[in-house]
Amino acid sequence: MELGIIGLGKMGGNMAERLRVGGHKVVGFDFNADTVKKLTDAGSVGVNSLEDLVKNLAAPRAIWIMVPAGDPVDETIAKLKPFMQKGDTFIDGGNSNYKDSQRRYAELKPEGFNFVDVGTSGGVWGLAEGYSMMIGGDKEPVERLRPIFETLAPGKEQGWGHVGPAGAGHFVKMVHNGIEYGMMQAYAEGFSIMGHKTQMNLDLAQIAEIWRYGSVVRSWLLDLTADALQKNPKLEGLEAYVSDSGEGRWTVFEAIDLNVSAPVITESLIRRIRSREDNNFTDRMLAIMRNAFGGHAVKKD
Amino acid sequence: MELGIIGLGKMGGNMAERLRVGGHKVVGFDFNADTVKKLTDAGSVGVNSLEDLVKNLAAPRAIWIMVPAGDPVDETIAKLKPFMQKGDTFIDGGNSNYKDSQRRYAELKPEGFNFVDVGTSGGVWGLAEGYSMMIGGDKEPVERLRPIFETLAPGKEQGWGHVGPAGAGHFVKMVHNGIEYGMMQAYAEGFSIMGHKTQMNLDLAQIAEIWRYGSVVRSWLLDLTADALQKNPKLEGLEAYVSDSGEGRWTVFEAIDLNVSAPVITESLIRRIRSREDNNFTDRMLAIMRNAFGGHAVKKD
Amino acid sequence: MELGIIGLGKMGGNMAERLRVGGHKVVGFDFNADTVKKLTDAGSVGVNSLEDLVKNLAAPRAIWIMVPAGDPVDETIAKLKPFMQKGDTFIDGGNSNYKDSQRRYAELKPEGFNFVDVGTSGGVWGLAEGYSMMIGGDKEPVERLRPIFETLAPGKEQGWGHVGPAGAGHFVKMVHNGIEYGMMQAYAEGFSIMGHKTQMNLDLAQIAEIWRYGSVVRSWLLDLTADALQKNPKLEGLEAYVSDSGEGRWTVFEAIDLNVSAPVITESLIRRIRSREDNNFTDRMLAIMRNAFGGHAVKKD
Amino acid sequence: MELGIIGLGKMGGNMAERLRVGGHKVVGFDFNADTVKKLTDAGSVGVNSLEDLVKNLAAPRAIWIMVPAGDPVDETIAKLKPFMQKGDTFIDGGNSNYKDSQRRYAELKPEGFNFVDVGTSGGVWGLAEGYSMMIGGDKEPVERLRPIFETLAPGKEQGWGHVGPAGAGHFVKMVHNGIEYGMMQAYAEGFSIMGHKTQMNLDLAQIAEIWRYGSVVRSWLLDLTADALQKNPKLEGLEAYVSDSGEGRWTVFEAIDLNVSAPVITESLIRRIRSREDNNFTDRMLAIMRNAFGGHAVKKD
Repeated sequence: MELGIIGLGKMGGNMAERLRVGGHKVVGFDFNADTVKKLTDAGSVGVNSLEDLVKNLAAPRAIWIMVPAGDPVDETIAKLKPFMQKGDTFIDGGNSNYKDSQRRYAELKPEGFNFVDVGTSGGVWGLAEGYSMMIGGDKEPVERLRPIFETLAPGKEQGWGHVGPAGAGHFVKMVHNGIEYGMMQAYAEGFSIMGHKTQMNLDLAQIAEIWRYGSVVRSWLLDLTADALQKNPKLEGLEAYVSDSGEGRWTVFEAIDLNVSAPVITESLIRRIRSREDNNFTDRMLAIMRNAFGGHAVKKD
Repeated sequence: MELGIIGLGKMGGNMAERLRVGGHKVVGFDFNADTVKKLTDAGSVGVNSLEDLVKNLAAPRAIWIMVPAGDPVDETIAKLKPFMQKGDTFIDGGNSNYKDSQRRYAELKPEGFNFVDVGTSGGVWGLAEGYSMMIGGDKEPVERLRPIFETLAPGKEQGWGHVGPAGAGHFVKMVHNGIEYGMMQAYAEGFSIMGHKTQMNLDLAQIAEIWRYGSVVRSWLLDLTADALQKNPKLEGLEAYVSDSGEGRWTVFEAIDLNVSAPVITESLIRRIRSREDNNFTDRMLAIMRNAFGGHAVKKD
Repeated sequence: MELGIIGLGKMGGNMAERLRVGGHKVVGFDFNADTVKKLTDAGSVGVNSLEDLVKNLAAPRAIWIMVPAGDPVDETIAKLKPFMQKGDTFIDGGNSNYKDSQRRYAELKPEGFNFVDVGTSGGVWGLAEGYSMMIGGDKEPVERLRPIFETLAPGKEQGWGHVGPAGAGHFVKMVHNGIEYGMMQAYAEGFSIMGHKTQMNLDLAQIAEIWRYGSVVRSWLLDLTADALQKNPKLEGLEAYVSDSGEGRWTVFEAIDLNVSAPVITESLIRRIRSREDNNFTDRMLAIMRNAFGGHAVKKD
Repeated sequence: MELGIIGLGKMGGNMAERLRVGGHKVVGFDFNADTVKKLTDAGSVGVNSLEDLVKNLAAPRAIWIMVPAGDPVDETIAKLKPFMQKGDTFIDGGNSNYKDSQRRYAELKPEGFNFVDVGTSGGVWGLAEGYSMMIGGDKEPVERLRPIFETLAPGKEQGWGHVGPAGAGHFVKMVHNGIEYGMMQAYAEGFSIMGHKTQMNLDLAQIAEIWRYGSVVRSWLLDLTADALQKNPKLEGLEAYVSDSGEGRWTVFEAIDLNVSAPVITESLIRRIRSREDNNFTDRMLAIMRNAFGGHAVKKD
């Protein structure tokens, strides 16, 4: 079928290609002319304006928005809307906050538009292995888009599903990322413990490779970790600095709002924040308190 | 090749069977006559005493001890030793503390015996899928046992390895379980958050199934969780009570001893402990403190 | 000087009394006629309407609002405003979110009104010992109210201060409560550990009393705890159920928004949430996962 | 009464002086001749050998050992014992592990000696304000030493007590320090949050001073913190590096062994460990995992 895609970056570009290979007509727009050309060169339809994007699609249209979460999504919808018709569908496939998706649905629905939110996982591996998609929205547009999801997914009936009303797709993706934080932290702590057992001289890459088969902790993340450790066994040359992209903290906020205790996901976020704190004030205060009550020496800076 | 096995329970019995199918001669002993008979019926050699076990194996012998960690291992070695000869090998395949394995090696080595510790993962799935094995000890006996490991493992060159000196096998298995605690807690928290988002009426079994393909959190644990949720979507009929079997707390102790901060593995252990605290004293004290300074009501028991 | 007070409950009523004893004229209103009568009986001016409240005060007026945080504060301001004049001051002495205080200031200032936010600590002990007050707002009204603060505080120059612009008072009070959560949890855990060391048969009330003098952990909270333990050494008859009143979770949200890692305050909140989770889903999921991979028994409900 | 003291450092020296002022005869030994001379100059009896120490005391003797925890205590007892008589008392006033104290009692008791363990808190402030003492051991020697405790304590009946059998003194002191870790971390996090709210430009020293009176978080630790912040408002010139001295980790181990969940005390220890981890391996592994699955950039070292 036909699909418009706005945003042809790392994610959007690969999705367009997977769809094209799967036999769909993709019309793509991006502010970056190079990525548009790349799309055209690959055999899809690259356009240079939102108006052209819409014109190249037959109603009822479906346009997949793959831009950074937040204002860019609202701005894209606002610019796109004048060219769209009742019955057309906006798809937000980015990492939006689910509350924004609920709001966007509530705004677009009364105007006759469909809004579908797709929490998309798969990263740089999606082109080859398919994307995991958690979908929120009304049944009708989701069903209409089934051929798209079946092609993007790892398998026709695998790795995607309509999980609930508008917002549910991004909600489930948010929690997915919260779990991801916890799993990553668990692995990283374990490997760190083993790396510090210097008298055993353990080979972390070997251990990761062993665990990939038959162990309880085998996973795709472990597969990637084993590969990374083989290439760089001591993880040299990189800073101990970990970013977070929003979903982790949203998960923490949501857990608290729902009165669900989620200490491990929360602690995983806190540790990422900690990785970015230089000259930590909290620790300096602890040092000075110890000095104040016990006369314990402090380290001078 | 030949292998003696002591302890033919859930783990030992299945390992004996996997070895037999793989073409090895297994001689097995257990205090439970039924499991010995079962072994014999399956085509292996069941015996009724440790002396007979040793007699049925040609030197240099290798005997795999699969009994509960702690004193039972020491007692088994002590009873077995009089029948063994220099050059024979004791294998501890249970969940022993790695410090015990280091001690046992140090005791047996001067007497001319080999000691090999094998951290074994795989649980009830090992018979069909193979066991993940992390092996510690001297090179010579580990190499000699290669045919055994190749058969027990998921693949000839997969899922097993000689990771370091005596104790290293159990050390790595210990950390494996620590990571396992963290991963489990991360999943469980995430599903709990989704389950409490009642207005979205999310189907946890469906979501687990979706995530199995293409998502970042896909893993073997998730495969099992998806299956469990499909059979019992609300996890009804079971208590919120979680045991721990030692490796988790040993991992926490080790991290502290090595001065490695491991908050997520630690918190995962603490939450299991918390699950077993009825009428929590800490919480009652918090309630009474709030009452004392703020006049806040307490709930009567 | 003169002060109007709206809300004559546990906190507001005691503050009115402390002010009266300190020589101020207090005009008080409450929806509960009994508390108004009690105020009048004590020698202050009780009134039955907001209009009367304002009429009994000379301009420039100052009215201390001591009602539950959230909508009640906005509603009170809205109802009161028609009777107020430019230059009059609204004081919010409750546990409002500091962002609401910033908003209220921004709404009232252009209309010519002053808004002062006072984070107030002291609970049921304030009448006798004085209230700790952290004050946000413009300098002029705060200085004008100095006699009020000097009387309410534990000492003329003690236990109160103008800490910053509008919102800063409630912000500092919010963090105060976050710290309070952490301290309470630390004490409660420590006493719980001692209580579980049954072979030593420790007397928790005695230990709390010992620590009150000379120890590093001496504090007012410990004084109260010692008293509570003396009255009820085993903390019998109350449920292990701990409420939280908002400031704790706001502190956690704020720490994350500011990218400050605050694991102990956060964990203290999470443990309160945990105290209210019956039949914990997370723990049930852990139990069923252990069963799924290892065949470990689950406890039936 | 008479008391021997071994170890005249920061703690032991001040305790000797407080006892002398209180009218007791103190006989003191230290390997450092200067501190012995200082003791003599102050009017107590300084000696240069353990033999002389014992000779200068009348039976039944009591000797307070104030040396670093661990081997030094055992060595001191071993060297001292030949000069001691049945009925004499060894007092360990240092920060020993309570299990060592239980062992020492069990060794000394059958030989006719008394052993009393005194968990001592007070740090550099003890000389002026008195020491908090938690005492374990048999009733008879503890009662005999009452005049010593009454003098060292903040008040005759305040700040000290016989809390249980041998080991109980150090056990309670251990938990005291665990609580101390949690309280310190709670304060430090709170002040850190406030310090990062830069748009409010909060004065942390002022806030600490305000909280000292009437607030729920008032404490001796806060008094010291307010003083430290006044002298160094930004905590400049010191490293974010926090030591721990043993009791914190023992408390964590004990909590786990007793199956008491103590997340805040535990997390406080973990954060101290974290403060000493340079180029954190865990965080580098998280960074490389994010890169591996999502193509997220890593910071180069």
